[in-house]
Amino acid sequence: MSSMTETRTGTGAARVETQVPTPTYEGDFVLDEPLLLDSGRTLAGTTLHYAVYGRLNAEHDNAVLVCHALSGSAQVGAWWPEIFAPGALLSLDHDFVICVNLLGSCYGSTGPGSLNPGTGRVYGPDFPLVSIRDNVRAQAQLMASLGIRRLRLVLGGSIGGMQALEWAMHDPERVERAVIIGVAPLSAMGLALNHLQRQAIQLDPEWAGGLYLPQRPPRRGLALARQVAMLSYKSAGLFDERFGRNPNRNGEDPWGLACGGDGQAGVQGGGLIGGRFDIAGYLDNQGDRFIDRFDANAYLSILRTMDTWDPLHGNPSAMQAFSRIRARLSFVGIGSDWLFPPETVRQFAHTVRTAGVEADYLQMASTHGHDAFLAEQAELVRLLQ
Amino acid sequence: MSSMTETRTGTGAARVETQVPTPTYEGDFVLDEPLLLDSGRTLAGTTLHYAVYGRLNAEHDNAVLVCHALSGSAQVGAWWPEIFAPGALLSLDHDFVICVNLLGSCYGSTGPGSLNPGTGRVYGPDFPLVSIRDNVRAQAQLMASLGIRRLRLVLGGSIGGMQALEWAMHDPERVERAVIIGVAPLSAMGLALNHLQRQAIQLDPEWAGGLYLPQRPPRRGLALARQVAMLSYKSAGLFDERFGRNPNRNGEDPWGLACGGDGQAGVQGGGLIGGRFDIAGYLDNQGDRFIDRFDANAYLSILRTMDTWDPLHGNPSAMQAFSRIRARLSFVGIGSDWLFPPETVRQFAHTVRTAGVEADYLQMASTHGHDAFLAEQAELVRLLQ
Repeated sequence: MSSMTETRTGTGAARVETQVPTPTYEGDFVLDEPLLLDSGRTLAGTTLHYAVYGRLNAEHDNAVLVCHALSGSAQVGAWWPEIFAPGALLSLDHDFVICVNLLGSCYGSTGPGSLNPGTGRVYGPDFPLVSIRDNVRAQAQLMASLGIRRLRLVLGGSIGGMQALEWAMHDPERVERAVIIGVAPLSAMGLALNHLQRQAIQLDPEWAGGLYLPQRPPRRGLALARQVAMLSYKSAGLFDERFGRNPNRNGEDPWGLACGGDGQAGVQGGGLIGGRFDIAGYLDNQGDRFIDRFDANAYLSILRTMDTWDPLHGNPSAMQAFSRIRARLSFVGIGSDWLFPPETVRQFAHTVRTAGVEADYLQMASTHGHDAFLAEQAELVRLLQ
Repeated sequence: MSSMTETRTGTGAARVETQVPTPTYEGDFVLDEPLLLDSGRTLAGTTLHYAVYGRLNAEHDNAVLVCHALSGSAQVGAWWPEIFAPGALLSLDHDFVICVNLLGSCYGSTGPGSLNPGTGRVYGPDFPLVSIRDNVRAQAQLMASLGIRRLRLVLGGSIGGMQALEWAMHDPERVERAVIIGVAPLSAMGLALNHLQRQAIQLDPEWAGGLYLPQRPPRRGLALARQVAMLSYKSAGLFDERFGRNPNRNGEDPWGLACGGDGQAGVQGGGLIGGRFDIAGYLDNQGDRFIDRFDANAYLSILRTMDTWDPLHGNPSAMQAFSRIRARLSFVGIGSDWLFPPETVRQFAHTVRTAGVEADYLQMASTHGHDAFLAEQAELVRLLQ
């Protein structure tokens, strides 16, 4: 059982034991003023939860900002440990690393589960759309309060990459370099996948229009949303290699009368719902693990943050959107990524370059799909060194 | 409004006006004996709903069997009209064309909505797993009753292609030629997509474990299942070309506060659910249209028929599985199909060929994805001529 869990949890291969760095400090930063959002609304009492690793040097110029993806947290040391391995990208002897939880999230920054100071109740479904740029604007205030004049590097994958590019646009004098991994504005297929996830949560009666109580969240809807996402984070090749057409490893029989999962599905479904294939058992497992660590309204909030990100939106040209950038940019595409296909990332890098920006494109060879920047960290480190 | 509906309904381009052939006869065939199923259960009072076009000739050797896909019906003239166009694949002057509704469907053959003669109640969730081979065995009895000695051609796309190949395996002396379009045993990614669809239906409280009343079906769950399916039937390239990152054509604003669809989503979701992008409006529209024409339990039943099809399952080798085949086979892969990628179809054709079977592989160039065999019929006809 434990080995099965391990295979389902990890990357398939045994992961090399990596030391997880501990934050020097982890805490909250509260903005002085209400944050005026791109959507026109304001967010009062905005709190950013953040973690820092290492120490700011006397010149205040050794800061690195790492930006996390949809379901990540400020604890970059926990979810991206190999970036800190000896000789890898970051060194706690030399770098001062900051990671800030996204607004809308459920990991400490202001989100749908926070109290709305205007009403004295939690925001719930009334939590406003917070754009990537809104996040960057708020993070910039935190940087100022920490005394950070320069960011020698801003990097992130997926939504983290959206923030990294937006940082280079928003604060051209502060950012020296930005690494933008596995991301471009979402394609129609990406928007479609997010639309399915949104509806999965809305379909769960426990969602209750977003007004659920914390002790009674829409677990099944969020689990299904996570399963849709996992499909888009991985690749068909990896699934074939790892699961193929095998029956679920617990012994269910897709061809027979055996029932699925905890028995419920089979009992409920009779002949219509059979024993699961292994890929279905894997996806169910992924969904089940996710609902214990994430909140449905936070998920909806960040989906929308992701959907609406498009630096070209409202800009007449790439020149207008990107020409202020002074940082050196590196875009990284992932070979087997079908959520943000490498060709799309390469093309996006090219578009940014047409505005006179120094922007190279690197491609990561991996069968892991979009998830490769988390699942194959050593490979990413090699590429970026 | 009507042009919008047309674009959403059709193939994007104006479809050439095609004459829809009318069946010579449409009706039911009831099997004499209970059908013993691969799963070990029996299906009593098995009814096949079928349609025929043209007339059987004196030699009884001009019969063509067309097999339909998941949500198709026996009325092949209605859903595949261009196959009958002058000079195309089939001619009602020369061919006697039969199409049989799948068991498990809601279009006339025995399915979850049928009365179980054993209990006097509808099968509902107790409807047994019916394999592709079970379908072929039942269809073979219909062919015999119609006096058909030879099938000059059996053809179909997707699940229809599964039946076509199974026919060549089951009844080698009867089948002269089989054309198997856009299909191979489902990959892990295909099984995953079906797993999502199954759960979408189960998540709808109206599904009620499959015991819903006909007047109160799980519409939202089935609509979401259809949306997942549409994603897999089309291609990322087509979505980009047709929808891109455009706001929904009814004027919703994904960046603003406007609410989605009928207003419900926006009212319920506040800032968490925004105005839709065009791709989301398209998918919602596809889901809404589907729930008026299909039944959720029938959908679940055929998903399982599809999942479990694997001629190599239980066979020690391709030789054992396929060497009885006498028909000439043609496999057709579709360039942009990611549900059944062309490389997988080509590889499957190769596997069949290793058993000494005459099996060629053709590839259809199309941006339409899996759906191309329905969306670009003229192209398919050209390829097969």
